[in-house]
Amino acid sequence: MIVIMKPGATGKEVSHVVDLIRDYGLKDHVIEGTDRTVVACIGDKRNVDKGAIENAPMVERIVPILAPYKMASVEVKQEKSVIEIGPARFPIGGNKVGIIAGPCAVEDRDQLLRTAEKVKEAGAIAIRGGAYKPRTSPYSFQGLGEEGLKILAEAREKTGLAVVTEVIGVEQVDVVAHYADVLQIGARNMQHYPLLEAVGKTNKPVMLKRGLSAQIDEFLLAAEYIINGGNSQVILCERGIRTFERYVRNTLCISAVAELNDKTHLPVVVDPSHGTGHAHLVAAASRAAIAAGADGLLVECHLDPEHALSDGAQSITPDALSEMMVQIKKIAEAIGRDA
Amino acid sequence: MIVIMKPGATGKEVSHVVDLIRDYGLKDHVIEGTDRTVVACIGDKRNVDKGAIENAPMVERIVPILAPYKMASVEVKQEKSVIEIGPARFPIGGNKVGIIAGPCAVEDRDQLLRTAEKVKEAGAIAIRGGAYKPRTSPYSFQGLGEEGLKILAEAREKTGLAVVTEVIGVEQVDVVAHYADVLQIGARNMQHYPLLEAVGKTNKPVMLKRGLSAQIDEFLLAAEYIINGGNSQVILCERGIRTFERYVRNTLCISAVAELNDKTHLPVVVDPSHGTGHAHLVAAASRAAIAAGADGLLVECHLDPEHALSDGAQSITPDALSEMMVQIKKIAEAIGRDA
Amino acid sequence: MIVIMKPGATGKEVSHVVDLIRDYGLKDHVIEGTDRTVVACIGDKRNVDKGAIENAPMVERIVPILAPYKMASVEVKQEKSVIEIGPARFPIGGNKVGIIAGPCAVEDRDQLLRTAEKVKEAGAIAIRGGAYKPRTSPYSFQGLGEEGLKILAEAREKTGLAVVTEVIGVEQVDVVAHYADVLQIGARNMQHYPLLEAVGKTNKPVMLKRGLSAQIDEFLLAAEYIINGGNSQVILCERGIRTFERYVRNTLCISAVAELNDKTHLPVVVDPSHGTGHAHLVAAASRAAIAAGADGLLVECHLDPEHALSDGAQSITPDALSEMMVQIKKIAEAIGRDA
Amino acid sequence: MIVIMKPGATGKEVSHVVDLIRDYGLKDHVIEGTDRTVVACIGDKRNVDKGAIENAPMVERIVPILAPYKMASVEVKQEKSVIEIGPARFPIGGNKVGIIAGPCAVEDRDQLLRTAEKVKEAGAIAIRGGAYKPRTSPYSFQGLGEEGLKILAEAREKTGLAVVTEVIGVEQVDVVAHYADVLQIGARNMQHYPLLEAVGKTNKPVMLKRGLSAQIDEFLLAAEYIINGGNSQVILCERGIRTFERYVRNTLCISAVAELNDKTHLPVVVDPSHGTGHAHLVAAASRAAIAAGADGLLVECHLDPEHALSDGAQSITPDALSEMMVQIKKIAEAIGRDA
Repeated sequence: MIVIMKPGATGKEVSHVVDLIRDYGLKDHVIEGTDRTVVACIGDKRNVDKGAIENAPMVERIVPILAPYKMASVEVKQEKSVIEIGPARFPIGGNKVGIIAGPCAVEDRDQLLRTAEKVKEAGAIAIRGGAYKPRTSPYSFQGLGEEGLKILAEAREKTGLAVVTEVIGVEQVDVVAHYADVLQIGARNMQHYPLLEAVGKTNKPVMLKRGLSAQIDEFLLAAEYIINGGNSQVILCERGIRTFERYVRNTLCISAVAELNDKTHLPVVVDPSHGTGHAHLVAAASRAAIAAGADGLLVECHLDPEHALSDGAQSITPDALSEMMVQIKKIAEAIGRDA
Repeated sequence: MIVIMKPGATGKEVSHVVDLIRDYGLKDHVIEGTDRTVVACIGDKRNVDKGAIENAPMVERIVPILAPYKMASVEVKQEKSVIEIGPARFPIGGNKVGIIAGPCAVEDRDQLLRTAEKVKEAGAIAIRGGAYKPRTSPYSFQGLGEEGLKILAEAREKTGLAVVTEVIGVEQVDVVAHYADVLQIGARNMQHYPLLEAVGKTNKPVMLKRGLSAQIDEFLLAAEYIINGGNSQVILCERGIRTFERYVRNTLCISAVAELNDKTHLPVVVDPSHGTGHAHLVAAASRAAIAAGADGLLVECHLDPEHALSDGAQSITPDALSEMMVQIKKIAEAIGRDA
Repeated sequence: MIVIMKPGATGKEVSHVVDLIRDYGLKDHVIEGTDRTVVACIGDKRNVDKGAIENAPMVERIVPILAPYKMASVEVKQEKSVIEIGPARFPIGGNKVGIIAGPCAVEDRDQLLRTAEKVKEAGAIAIRGGAYKPRTSPYSFQGLGEEGLKILAEAREKTGLAVVTEVIGVEQVDVVAHYADVLQIGARNMQHYPLLEAVGKTNKPVMLKRGLSAQIDEFLLAAEYIINGGNSQVILCERGIRTFERYVRNTLCISAVAELNDKTHLPVVVDPSHGTGHAHLVAAASRAAIAAGADGLLVECHLDPEHALSDGAQSITPDALSEMMVQIKKIAEAIGRDA
Repeated sequence: MIVIMKPGATGKEVSHVVDLIRDYGLKDHVIEGTDRTVVACIGDKRNVDKGAIENAPMVERIVPILAPYKMASVEVKQEKSVIEIGPARFPIGGNKVGIIAGPCAVEDRDQLLRTAEKVKEAGAIAIRGGAYKPRTSPYSFQGLGEEGLKILAEAREKTGLAVVTEVIGVEQVDVVAHYADVLQIGARNMQHYPLLEAVGKTNKPVMLKRGLSAQIDEFLLAAEYIINGGNSQVILCERGIRTFERYVRNTLCISAVAELNDKTHLPVVVDPSHGTGHAHLVAAASRAAIAAGADGLLVECHLDPEHALSDGAQSITPDALSEMMVQIKKIAEAIGRDA
């Protein structure tokens, strides 16, 4: 951490800051510049809130140096983590990119089983579908609950696909972990710490979606909560952030894929459906994600998007998925991967 | 809802949209413009996801007409709700503005009791302080838990102040409701629906903080979850949003106060501490909030901000609070209120 | 400037950075921390692009220390600048807050003269109105040009009000400076450097509006261009930034008023009209601005907003202005100022 | 346009809105819903500010229906525009993607000529480089002016590459058009209308960069200014927007490429250098851009980025460019294009 003093700070004011730094168990190092004095603080104290030093007289600001996360970092583990999912133990984070597809919500048994077959044919390695739905409005369809989980498990049995489904509260962790292969944490829950701790105590891989306004560091700290809880099988999912743009539901951050690949060993997948919000943009966003280096895609796919109970606007049909897969495969090969 | 067709949509394509609208149980009304056809949909179906219609051929976009929330709306209840808090039954939402102050976290008994006395002297009507802390990093101080709640209750007994404290998970709702006068839902949990439903089943007032990237409609829908659960005592708290600005931790949306006063009957308070992130900006933001029409303030106040265990940078001292209160009172009077 | 090395940087890599720093004419100071090495650079070189050092191997990032602006800074001039405008030499930046009001565009002579009288009665010290209009669409009304300037000058003669009007290109600087008392630089032109340099060569006060996505430093650097050109009479105008919020045209940054008062000696006014975009929010935003410490307001006021040729949605009537002024005066007094 | 009335609007209030609509020369169409009345307005009046109707009593909001731009729209011209640049008449917007590379600024003759040869070898079709630099700080290097243009022209002669360079003011349009093949309008000038009009009067292709906070409609309206001025050779350049993200200088909007391809016939290129701000992210962003459907790239490339006078942090070396081109070509082929 570096403390930057305001111009004109006196020796006494600098000494006061030095005392504070020592209070926090850090070593100080004072550097007098032409206009300003800065005090470098040496020592690793991730667990104290050093921002408080900002309150000392004539301090202008505090600059953190260390990344706030550890176990998610490439500093701790340099080789990429490979996380195996589902009955076929498909390796996410390996050379092959993995496509996860399915409806936003499990609406009924027939719909889900037919969709599972279709996405399998298209080349997907997992089926997604919500049994518990976190909906912005209390008046919207809230999911089938455990009944939906059973349908997903049946689809796995019939197709061999892995099952990825969301868990929206601590109370559901056990039941979801019983049926699912991957526990999804939704964007709205990225910083619901009791839930992160709870999935950290399971032995199932976790798909952690980036919050709508999460900084990269906060995203990795959320992963850190899960790893710290005892579960290192975390897959990160970039799904767009909220910006001033209006032609999209969210602005997909394609550079985040490259930055995450640079900062963490955890696999990174992209959700082009929430990441755009409109079916006509999904294929282009998917191609871009794979080209940028994503380890997989999480795509909303519905047999009849015009009548989907949720997220219809951003769902593509199984046919559109199949068509898109042709280019996805070629792009994966173009960068030395496989799909 | 209005469906806007692309230019060149054929009669058949418009008919297909009309069929979809009828499938959704709505009445249609087709209007042919010079360049485009639009289809107005009549009927109140807040519970269906009409966005799916966007997927129909030659549909450009869907424009919702109805506000998605109901019970939080001035359409349902025009007079302002007044919510009484604490042993003194202080009315939030009445003519008098209410100041809630205290440390980010309850750190120890002595600290909290002394702070409570100080903020009472400064004119506050409630003490705030976290016993359960949602922290971005798993390595940060996580709060004293129930021990902290007991200290808060003791402070209430000694001072008569109401107690406002955060509940971070469904599991803590009962214990927090046992000790506290107002249950705070933090910004990160604004869309944690199980928690909203759980506090909706208590009979304690709820302080609902706006999420970092929540639209006004989403904020009111979160309140709607609580009201829909059975608890209409919801106080809204504007606390800044995430933008590109860097001199602040969050950008305080002062216009949100006026817009909320226009759209909802629920009281609105402002958190100038998270809303700015820096102690030197708190007084100006507080004055602005009251001038804009806020019903109260939620201020972080610490005896020794330089050593605060959390949020030190944005905490002010009790003396600074007292000083600020002088202007707050005058501004309240300037707009015909009382502080 | 501080250069932060990645963990694991070798002595050779640090030496390479030290060499680069010396190439840039700066002194180096190497600090070895527990995890990382940082290199502090001493010396004031505002004119070189030190970001290039980021490209050296094993450099993680660069942290600037010095503010990039100088003459606009409180470090150079501590007492607040007072800028006198118009025939009455009204002092912007003094104890009295100054209200500037008028239509978005000068539409015709009669409209403007009647508006000038009305805003004068309401207590305004200047009339605003565009003669040259920068419009998002080439098909919108583009203003009356020099004819509009003549009408504004006539209004000044009749009422004694100062004239504030926008200059949209270098070509118009002379003619606008001939008629107007204050040259307004619009938000879209905040970084049009040839224009900043051109108004820097006039002797008329400049009202510089913050760009839609301008950081505070960039805003002050734009002011620095004008001051550097020879004209230190710069009034800053906060007018809202672009965020994800939709109930407003722009998000008014009330904290920016306090931060600017802390960082610069230049006067700061607020535009509550563009800052909200809707007439029903203008009064609350105006009150908040004065309470936060603004030196004045720039308000769009139209005799018949429903028929305004531009910005009708955010214009208030002269009656609404008069009504609002009552509270503005009281709030100014509440914080020890005058209106 | 649709006018949405507030619930409870009376017949008289609706009639008043109908009168206003007719004043604006539009036809009205009143639809009474269950909760609200909406009034559809028929007729194409892009040139009037209908927002003013929002001021009428009991109007809630106005929803525009027509796109505000015309000539840039696929409604007017469905086949993609192909714009030929430079001595080799390279077709931007055709099947082959075009790479434009070079330093941020022309620093000296030797540097530029050597860079031109290198980027040509790497497969670029044009050299970029600023002779007039719009710099955030008045103390930064401002470019070599006409001398720089002459060097660029010499590079064209020696290599056959097209020359792309920025014009920062109306005053420079003639001289830049004399030497350059493509006139670049920088992001900061996207809404400097006099400049848009001035380049609209030349016969040189224009590279229009998206503003830091420009909505897609505003971007296309800026293009419309140029086309409306008489020059339809406009190439759009997505270069990232300003968001809350901090690991990038700007957030590259990859979905904008697909959306623009859907809405306009103009070619679209991507600037991965400003779009990320860091050399280590440029290759991934470039691959994603081509995969998403961009017609080309505008890349900052410098012989010695560590000593670049501007934008060093985001410049890549010619070797890195060559290496990246291998994958770019394969990705272009994967989607049926050529590079």
